[in-house]
Amino acid sequence: MANSPSGDSVTDRLVRVLDTFTPTRTAQTAAEVGRRAGLPPSTAHRFVGELVDAGLLERDGDGRVRVGMRLWELATRSSHALRLRQAALPAMERAQARIREHTQLAILEQDEALFLERLSGQDAGANITRVAGRLPLHASSSGLVLLAYADADVRERVLAQPLRRLAGATPTTPEAVRRKLDEIRTLGHAVAPGFVEDVSTGVAVPVRADAGRVVAALSAILPRDAPTTPVLEELHRAAREIEHALTRA
Amino acid sequence: MANSPSGDSVTDRLVRVLDTFTPTRTAQTAAEVGRRAGLPPSTAHRFVGELVDAGLLERDGDGRVRVGMRLWELATRSSHALRLRQAALPAMERAQARIREHTQLAILEQDEALFLERLSGQDAGANITRVAGRLPLHASSSGLVLLAYADADVRERVLAQPLRRLAGATPTTPEAVRRKLDEIRTLGHAVAPGFVEDVSTGVAVPVRADAGRVVAALSAILPRDAPTTPVLEELHRAAREIEHALTRA
Repeated sequence: MANSPSGDSVTDRLVRVLDTFTPTRTAQTAAEVGRRAGLPPSTAHRFVGELVDAGLLERDGDGRVRVGMRLWELATRSSHALRLRQAALPAMERAQARIREHTQLAILEQDEALFLERLSGQDAGANITRVAGRLPLHASSSGLVLLAYADADVRERVLAQPLRRLAGATPTTPEAVRRKLDEIRTLGHAVAPGFVEDVSTGVAVPVRADAGRVVAALSAILPRDAPTTPVLEELHRAAREIEHALTRA
Repeated sequence: MANSPSGDSVTDRLVRVLDTFTPTRTAQTAAEVGRRAGLPPSTAHRFVGELVDAGLLERDGDGRVRVGMRLWELATRSSHALRLRQAALPAMERAQARIREHTQLAILEQDEALFLERLSGQDAGANITRVAGRLPLHASSSGLVLLAYADADVRERVLAQPLRRLAGATPTTPEAVRRKLDEIRTLGHAVAPGFVEDVSTGVAVPVRADAGRVVAALSAILPRDAPTTPVLEELHRAAREIEHALTRA
């Protein structure tokens, strides 16, 4: 619908424009947006103005624009992510209070782990993840749990791609990842020491919907050599609580 | 850009389409979306398909579509709402654990109170608000705090509109709202017994950015006749903690 002369739809352009905003680049001029989204300056100017009029972008005081509250509202209020996250939050809070390290909830989205929520204690250690951020499935403890219980076609597709190294211990061959996935299905949890960052160990457990299907991974990020067993017990308990909350919801 | 024959832009259409999804209507057929968004069936079908291709909507198994995770991700990862909410969450958790009632964070958005976060105890009482939901400024304790410290032009615009009654004690005349706003500025907090629902009392305090500007309201929803003073003390303490977190962030 309403294709441009170059053949891309306005929807594609919108996604390209929104995709230029990141956690570390929250405000840009219309010209910067256009350059990063591959739009001619006059087109970028007009399109950004239209998005501002609709509330999907907002102008700040410096002639820059950022993602608007209206877009957040429209994207959030009926979303699957919000319902899962609201069901999970009380159990995550209890677990985080005992674990006292970053505690996070991720789902499988477009062959990556997408983080819906992250709770952090005041003195928790390093952690690369962010809410609405992503990590590769083969590298993060959350991603490995999601991959271990994913449909076979997802698994084969991911293992057929280059497996990027994020840290010294990231598994980067299909064989190494498959061994890890077997281990996860046997143990019922993932331990990923130095897979994402050399200084930390991720541990993750599956969260199941009532039909037994894994819908999310609940994880914690610990200092590299911290004991994992007590944390895994807390995560398993919280996962059960989330599953009960999902059944009630 | 790319206006349709009827003169509305594709951006307007997108907003109209997304606006048909609500917390209680999370999945619809393309035909239902089109009818509610005022689009002809063939246009609706094509546009919904385009939004699915871009990941902004997702198909479920029943031939219906819902708001996609990709839209949530794009709207959330760089958003002002997320940063404010992440800064507020630890203090909100501590306050909610002591108050043991719904504890919520709202901002002023398009002349309404938009709720960014809501934490609920397992046995907390009735509460009409939702994350990404809205309430009128004149009726809710959060809205009244936001209105009390808003720019004069926002206040006059809101008071010039019809002031809808939500419950028995909702203030519905400009004079009654002005008296309440004066009281809020004097006391530094709002107490709204039976303003939104007859069975509950909302209490709210302002949250300020470092320049002293009020950027949010922190509130709790109590049973109608519960004591408010200890809860207000908790909310004020949490608001100070959020202000410190915002200064650090």
